[in-house]
Amino acid sequence: MSPPMPSTRLHRVPAAAPDDVSGLERLVADGALDPVGIVAILGKTEGNGCVNDFTRGFATRALADFLSAHVGSERAGGVVLVMSGGTEGALSPHWLVFERMEAGKGPEFPDGSLAIGTCVTRDLLPEEIGRAAQMEVVRAGVLEAMAAAGIASADDVHFVQIKCPLLTSTRIADAASRGRSCTVSDTLKSMGLSRGTSALGIALALEELGAAAVPESAIGRDMSLFSGRASTSAGIELMGHEILVLGMSERWRGPLAVGHAVMRDAIDAAPVRACLDALGVPAGARFEALLAKAEASRSGLVRGARHTMNDDSDISPTRHARAFVAGVLAGLTGTTELFVSGGAEHQGPDGGGPVAVIARRSAP
Amino acid sequence: MSPPMPSTRLHRVPAAAPDDVSGLERLVADGALDPVGIVAILGKTEGNGCVNDFTRGFATRALADFLSAHVGSERAGGVVLVMSGGTEGALSPHWLVFERMEAGKGPEFPDGSLAIGTCVTRDLLPEEIGRAAQMEVVRAGVLEAMAAAGIASADDVHFVQIKCPLLTSTRIADAASRGRSCTVSDTLKSMGLSRGTSALGIALALEELGAAAVPESAIGRDMSLFSGRASTSAGIELMGHEILVLGMSERWRGPLAVGHAVMRDAIDAAPVRACLDALGVPAGARFEALLAKAEASRSGLVRGARHTMNDDSDISPTRHARAFVAGVLAGLTGTTELFVSGGAEHQGPDGGGPVAVIARRSAP
Amino acid sequence: MSPPMPSTRLHRVPAAAPDDVSGLERLVADGALDPVGIVAILGKTEGNGCVNDFTRGFATRALADFLSAHVGSERAGGVVLVMSGGTEGALSPHWLVFERMEAGKGPEFPDGSLAIGTCVTRDLLPEEIGRAAQMEVVRAGVLEAMAAAGIASADDVHFVQIKCPLLTSTRIADAASRGRSCTVSDTLKSMGLSRGTSALGIALALEELGAAAVPESAIGRDMSLFSGRASTSAGIELMGHEILVLGMSERWRGPLAVGHAVMRDAIDAAPVRACLDALGVPAGARFEALLAKAEASRSGLVRGARHTMNDDSDISPTRHARAFVAGVLAGLTGTTELFVSGGAEHQGPDGGGPVAVIARRSAP
Amino acid sequence: MSPPMPSTRLHRVPAAAPDDVSGLERLVADGALDPVGIVAILGKTEGNGCVNDFTRGFATRALADFLSAHVGSERAGGVVLVMSGGTEGALSPHWLVFERMEAGKGPEFPDGSLAIGTCVTRDLLPEEIGRAAQMEVVRAGVLEAMAAAGIASADDVHFVQIKCPLLTSTRIADAASRGRSCTVSDTLKSMGLSRGTSALGIALALEELGAAAVPESAIGRDMSLFSGRASTSAGIELMGHEILVLGMSERWRGPLAVGHAVMRDAIDAAPVRACLDALGVPAGARFEALLAKAEASRSGLVRGARHTMNDDSDISPTRHARAFVAGVLAGLTGTTELFVSGGAEHQGPDGGGPVAVIARRSAP
Repeated sequence: MSPPMPSTRLHRVPAAAPDDVSGLERLVADGALDPVGIVAILGKTEGNGCVNDFTRGFATRALADFLSAHVGSERAGGVVLVMSGGTEGALSPHWLVFERMEAGKGPEFPDGSLAIGTCVTRDLLPEEIGRAAQMEVVRAGVLEAMAAAGIASADDVHFVQIKCPLLTSTRIADAASRGRSCTVSDTLKSMGLSRGTSALGIALALEELGAAAVPESAIGRDMSLFSGRASTSAGIELMGHEILVLGMSERWRGPLAVGHAVMRDAIDAAPVRACLDALGVPAGARFEALLAKAEASRSGLVRGARHTMNDDSDISPTRHARAFVAGVLAGLTGTTELFVSGGAEHQGPDGGGPVAVIARRSAP
Repeated sequence: MSPPMPSTRLHRVPAAAPDDVSGLERLVADGALDPVGIVAILGKTEGNGCVNDFTRGFATRALADFLSAHVGSERAGGVVLVMSGGTEGALSPHWLVFERMEAGKGPEFPDGSLAIGTCVTRDLLPEEIGRAAQMEVVRAGVLEAMAAAGIASADDVHFVQIKCPLLTSTRIADAASRGRSCTVSDTLKSMGLSRGTSALGIALALEELGAAAVPESAIGRDMSLFSGRASTSAGIELMGHEILVLGMSERWRGPLAVGHAVMRDAIDAAPVRACLDALGVPAGARFEALLAKAEASRSGLVRGARHTMNDDSDISPTRHARAFVAGVLAGLTGTTELFVSGGAEHQGPDGGGPVAVIARRSAP
Repeated sequence: MSPPMPSTRLHRVPAAAPDDVSGLERLVADGALDPVGIVAILGKTEGNGCVNDFTRGFATRALADFLSAHVGSERAGGVVLVMSGGTEGALSPHWLVFERMEAGKGPEFPDGSLAIGTCVTRDLLPEEIGRAAQMEVVRAGVLEAMAAAGIASADDVHFVQIKCPLLTSTRIADAASRGRSCTVSDTLKSMGLSRGTSALGIALALEELGAAAVPESAIGRDMSLFSGRASTSAGIELMGHEILVLGMSERWRGPLAVGHAVMRDAIDAAPVRACLDALGVPAGARFEALLAKAEASRSGLVRGARHTMNDDSDISPTRHARAFVAGVLAGLTGTTELFVSGGAEHQGPDGGGPVAVIARRSAP
Repeated sequence: MSPPMPSTRLHRVPAAAPDDVSGLERLVADGALDPVGIVAILGKTEGNGCVNDFTRGFATRALADFLSAHVGSERAGGVVLVMSGGTEGALSPHWLVFERMEAGKGPEFPDGSLAIGTCVTRDLLPEEIGRAAQMEVVRAGVLEAMAAAGIASADDVHFVQIKCPLLTSTRIADAASRGRSCTVSDTLKSMGLSRGTSALGIALALEELGAAAVPESAIGRDMSLFSGRASTSAGIELMGHEILVLGMSERWRGPLAVGHAVMRDAIDAAPVRACLDALGVPAGARFEALLAKAEASRSGLVRGARHTMNDDSDISPTRHARAFVAGVLAGLTGTTELFVSGGAEHQGPDGGGPVAVIARRSAP
């Protein structure tokens, strides 16, 4: 008898507040979710998605308590929790719960099924953020997560979601007290650098870029270097990285499949439509989830027309971009429960970004 | 010999700042724009689109100076100037210049061509804003603008754009000093009431609603009452209304045509796609301009999923909605030079809004 | 032998984040704070202080966990937790922990010492917020808290701090689903109404106003009606009220004393300076804490000069006012650890507000 | 007969909007202001004071039109117009009009009277902003303005107000198109660098610092280098500098006098109170105007207590600081018509800033 094949269950659950885990509790009570199998929870929370967004930490605390109550605090500590703040526009706060079922269910497909794996890296020192040290920590972490998912080839990875740290005034002062200077003093800017550095680490792991091509000096500067499958999100509540890899594997079974697209700019709907088509949505497959990055182009232009996001001192460019790109994607998918995350530095080309779609197929 | 038929020239011109009329000056210098024929200029300016958005007044002053220099101040005073603040997301600041050519050029089409007409109403008193008096002033003004355009039937009107006034603390105090109370003390809220009242005035003029169906008490409350062709925008710089009517008329010639759609909610892309198709865009006709309204649904929901726009105390709901719906529409049209205006009270259903598309047809 | 007299210990503790209770833990570890005696914790947290400020809920959760760990969840539930969001300007996030020592220490003073008492009221229904029902619930609660403090006369009360509920889109919908309409649909506005209604309840309890003088229709409208000793703060995390009364009582001992002042407008420093003088600060007594309300005057004026707080659509008036009045008070006291709370509806005159000062006296 | 001595008339005039010059027109009509004598107008306008604050340009246009109408466009071009955006807190929009009367009036004082002088420098290239070139341009300009005022010694200068340029996405792109890189790509940050560089230029001119002590690398980094009499303000509407020097001179007559103080931190009221006292306010002299700089300390602390201004991604630190320091100063002076300008880089110590007070003395 062949060994059991794992499969993924994905639960998209609305959240009424950053600490609202009642929807998760209901799933557990109904037997639709087994807490033991949870490997990652992604949350779209309703803060500003920038430095002083405490909704991410609040959500993390609520989720950690939820997990601890069900599986104990040690096992809970191994679950990847990636909270992405910012539900601008009509984006809807929700959780994406990735559950690994060891004795998987559902049909086997010739091209395999959605495979998931995670890794939590060591904490960084403040002065490591935005520098080569962070890039290497991430690269190694992604490989570890791929191994956990049983994905052998980088080509089979469609998306890597990472939660990475940021600088605060306090952390910068801490480094300074040890005689170390951080790479930037603007705390909002540190989020972008951390996201970008993590993305370059992903590109290295997925062999989209070679190590020689990515010197430390390119971080945050040479935006022609990017990963087309990275999504990174910075949060005040951690100093390490939590990594989730999504790919396709013939060693997994079940109806879920993942694909990805790269938007060349903020209004590049065509590749996303093509990705939906390729997965068979809506004909033959049902849309389950979308994960995307949004960003204001540094050029200040979209197809030659000026945008004002980078010159707006009232609303952060990341908030503008999230609202706008969410609109593009919601118009395509017909739902506002989308995991659109801001700040796509080194994630897709300048002003564009990677998009992953998860769909539920009918039996082959 | 038959009398000459008018035609419309529409110029979509980028603006580098609220007072940047250099693009218009260039068109005049090149002979591509005759200032004498300008009947209306719509501007998308880069302020917050709310109470303290002075980019609208700044733009209006620059445009008035531009017009006065070319056609004298009296004639300049008759040009409708509708500035809509707010280029959230990747929206691009630009001018839409509507020029009426008396001896029109271009082919004649069996179903006619884009016809334009304008009207400027009397100033309101602060206490009239948001009340029946404003509704009646607008209704009469729309009929006057239709007459100016030579459009006989309300059915041939596809869009009515209005600039209407708002309340400020000073204006409320002025009314109070005369023993009058305004309908609202929240100045941001006054913008919505003025927009909504103007929209109901349009609905009456276009016979979308009967007078008996729209009591004063419905203003700002019964959102089931709306116009599907109204777009109203409030500005601090005027106390009257400036009205622009866009329709189709067999008495006009030339390649331009206008159509409209009504979005049922913020992600309702289908009717807009159908409108583009009906106009033959991009096959056979070229996209020229889009005018739309965006709004956060009062229900707090989009297709059952919660949005957070109405609970965000950092960013006004109108700014969220503009950014998001702009994304939906830019994904469809491939450009960010879209006249998306916030605050769709009584303009389309709750959370949705009217959209007009202008296209350039090939010869019939 | 006379029975033991209680005394108050007040701890002012910096918070590095909304959930940072490490300073409290240190005090407990050092024996400087006995968790059993805690009757109230006031927190100044770093959110926006408006509808979607989740720092208050986050802080409340962290404090509740802290208390439960030390005194059990039942006793923890009886502690009044009043989180006031918003550390605009240079305000510094901190906790004010009020500890009641049964066998009090410190000298007895002829005019008594700081006495504290608390009460938690029943939950309101959404539709009760901003209406007479809320006023009565608060009035009764204040009397109960006075009794708990052993303060017989309203004249001896110097400050009443209340945490009250607000409306969200969800709560309004809940009322609507039961056929009830809430007093307002603008969620930010609901915070002001709840604060104002609570303040009028305090005024009734302290006999600053007679019941006949305060009809429901005056709520949020007749700002000539106010309490000079009320400070109310709205939060998304509760539907009832948490009440803390501060007064002087000869039945309490110890060095702490409380006094109050009423600012007539946002720059009225003189009464606060007089209050500091009366308490002997800094000569003879040491400044311990200040609690104040800040508000943008509805008149749009401060001493005849226009302010722009009410017309700013980017920053809420409450945030402006908190930053500004904090400056006035920090200039007087020499510290930024001040409990300045926004939204002074019916708390002091329009644009002004009540201020309480707590000082530590030398032995008499 | 001795030659006539000049004197200064200072008009503090409320503005109802950024383009409201009606108060100035009234003064002219009343004969209280002679437009020919105007050398500078400082305006506190109600925008956000950051990159996309168009109220400054709007005000400048209205003032230029006002001046041109009265004195012709050439003479109008020589008037220094310094608009400082941001009336956070209860700050009140107003104009400060500095008029030089050649045949001055009013008493002569032994220590002289307020003397004023101005200079307009050449335009910078975008890549010169924030670099040594800008520092030198400013240094030379300040000396020129001192000469114009007839102030021989740097010690007699009490305040130098400068309007300096900033970077926008467009300007950065312009430099890039010429193969030049600007010193920073963050447009909001460019405002701080331009302000700081200008302040260091002032320090050089006033001999507060020696040239050797101020390498280009110190700009924006070594905040221990500062001028105690500089106030610089960045605006999108110019590429050069407009400089106004305020000092005392025995060659000027009349009741006005100027003094200055340096606040060590944001709540350092004592030196300002001392400056008011030294000028005899309110006993013997009347308060006329105050000009000050406000800034969030980079340390993240005020007297050891954490502030959150630098970590707030919703409100710019300059807006926080302006509101807060305005409160400190309004509490001292009893008025909200104060010229408090944000961004005090290299202007006073970190977190503090220079303050100038102008008073009207009785006859000696």
